[in-house]
Amino acid sequence: MRPCQRPSLGDRMKMGDFTPMLEEMARVKRRVDALILDELLPRSHPVPAVDLLYTMMRDYPERPAKGMRPYLCVTSCKAFGGSEDLCLLTAAAIELFQNWILIHDDIEDGSEMRRGSPTLHKKYGWALALNTGDALHARMWESLLRNRNALGEARTLEVMGEFAQMINETTEGQQMELRWVVENDWAMTEEDYYQMCVKKTSWYTVISPMRLGALVAGSRVRDTEFLVDPGRKLGVGFQIHDDVLNLSAGERYGKEAADDLLEGKRTLILIKLLSSASPQDRRRVVEIFSLPREERRQLKGEVLDLIHRYDALGYAVETSARLVGDALSMLRQGSWADGPEVRRVEEIARYAIERDW
Amino acid sequence: MRPCQRPSLGDRMKMGDFTPMLEEMARVKRRVDALILDELLPRSHPVPAVDLLYTMMRDYPERPAKGMRPYLCVTSCKAFGGSEDLCLLTAAAIELFQNWILIHDDIEDGSEMRRGSPTLHKKYGWALALNTGDALHARMWESLLRNRNALGEARTLEVMGEFAQMINETTEGQQMELRWVVENDWAMTEEDYYQMCVKKTSWYTVISPMRLGALVAGSRVRDTEFLVDPGRKLGVGFQIHDDVLNLSAGERYGKEAADDLLEGKRTLILIKLLSSASPQDRRRVVEIFSLPREERRQLKGEVLDLIHRYDALGYAVETSARLVGDALSMLRQGSWADGPEVRRVEEIARYAIERDW
Repeated sequence: MRPCQRPSLGDRMKMGDFTPMLEEMARVKRRVDALILDELLPRSHPVPAVDLLYTMMRDYPERPAKGMRPYLCVTSCKAFGGSEDLCLLTAAAIELFQNWILIHDDIEDGSEMRRGSPTLHKKYGWALALNTGDALHARMWESLLRNRNALGEARTLEVMGEFAQMINETTEGQQMELRWVVENDWAMTEEDYYQMCVKKTSWYTVISPMRLGALVAGSRVRDTEFLVDPGRKLGVGFQIHDDVLNLSAGERYGKEAADDLLEGKRTLILIKLLSSASPQDRRRVVEIFSLPREERRQLKGEVLDLIHRYDALGYAVETSARLVGDALSMLRQGSWADGPEVRRVEEIARYAIERDW
Repeated sequence: MRPCQRPSLGDRMKMGDFTPMLEEMARVKRRVDALILDELLPRSHPVPAVDLLYTMMRDYPERPAKGMRPYLCVTSCKAFGGSEDLCLLTAAAIELFQNWILIHDDIEDGSEMRRGSPTLHKKYGWALALNTGDALHARMWESLLRNRNALGEARTLEVMGEFAQMINETTEGQQMELRWVVENDWAMTEEDYYQMCVKKTSWYTVISPMRLGALVAGSRVRDTEFLVDPGRKLGVGFQIHDDVLNLSAGERYGKEAADDLLEGKRTLILIKLLSSASPQDRRRVVEIFSLPREERRQLKGEVLDLIHRYDALGYAVETSARLVGDALSMLRQGSWADGPEVRRVEEIARYAIERDW
């Protein structure tokens, strides 16, 4: 099976341009990791039968990851006049959120690989993995309680309120997507997809990391409202690019190549394919997605060929670029001071649709 | 299959004696339910594809339940000089905790019935049910944030800290029990069982409800430490009695009769059976628990006969009575004022091992 070739954008920046930002992102990630692995998550437990729980809780956090969300949070905090140190616990809690929800999503989606290794439920069974996700979820809130000394009680509670909203949105988005898969529903429109994707991706990837940075820096909730609309667009642009990479970047991505096609994940690429395809091709695609996972694995190449034929990947690449472009225009009109940190937020936005893993 | 006969205790109180308490418990439960179903959980969502999530989130909370934990919390709050109104949100959050963790436990244990109806994952599939548990978990923390106006910021955070500890303990206990089941391990001692049960049951059933009541009433955390040791014993006594009921009360319990035997749940009853049985009978019990669930269903009667022969049920009944007796002595020496509300807490403790459903 040949992987999809990703169409190049005329105005595409060279990846080399992002090197300083990626170094900065890696530096913040190291600080966040140290906090999570040395302070927030216990290394072991005196009761041997409990000990495995802590090994499992540390499993995903110990795997390599870019740390884009905590970096966005810290950068946003600085853009609003706060400091990195003040924001580190909150950034770590965002990373903990990402880890526990991935454990559960991987079970729900039947995913087999995550960040280059078997998913947690593949390693330990879904019962132990599910419980580990819950334990990590509670540690996320426990970590947020530690903000009390540095942020004070009121701001600690504001930050927690944003986390509650973030999880509400994310679980609603997951509900939409799972229901489509469970019911083998392919009737969703681009508008449905956009709505799902804002909830499932934009909130925890962009809107909340930016708003949390602002709240830590001392902003009031209502002063962060201007971040929501561009955040929606940025998040969807990021997700579409992620789905493009899943089909084109293959194993570099830390998963089986094109495993979205195995999970039956509803992506803009497939929605575009289905709306552009001839009735016969459309029926064939829906038929393939009705097959059991293992049979579908054999037919990935056929779906990828159709994606090529109808240029659904090109459409997705253009759409994500347009969404991020719109978001950047909106952010530039936002009520925050111009400055190097605001430009760093813009740089993350561009990176979201330029990165190649 | 004939259900086990529960041995009667010489000093057993008539259930009639608990009638006023049960009416009071039901009254508090109605207030908690109204708060959960009318205020804390949305009835619906404007996006049709999301709407089912809220139907699922309301499913377990709408099923009949005694509400012993919120009642214990409210009663403890009054015993520490607080008011019921002040404690209602926290009591509702305890009930929300119970509901989301039951959704996940039912998936982990492969349970089929809960409170008289099919478990959530039997109704909607495990993927949607798992996500619903996460959504309800987040609503629990969101509800706790609403304490801010009535309790103030500091006390709101103290209450949340107790919730974090409660979930840490519960997930550790669940880890211990799941691992025994997953590895088909039957080598645990009574001491292992006690350790697991304190974590899995005592914290969220007794220790935290009592401490949360105290915190809401304005106690400092260190002034509630005296509740922990008797709380451990009470919780284990409650759980052992629950396991006795599972084998003896059958369908009244809202589950299939003796379904603990299907789930391979490690109970004091089985641990006592295994430690008392002849080598031959012991091998036979372990063999039965190595069989697939459906085959085990056919052999429930054989296990129940062995439980009778070795009087393992009688041992469990005596042990739970002893634990609760010890707990009551310890509570009476505790540093809280004597008074009608303290006596109500004692009444709940007695009820925990006298109830017949």
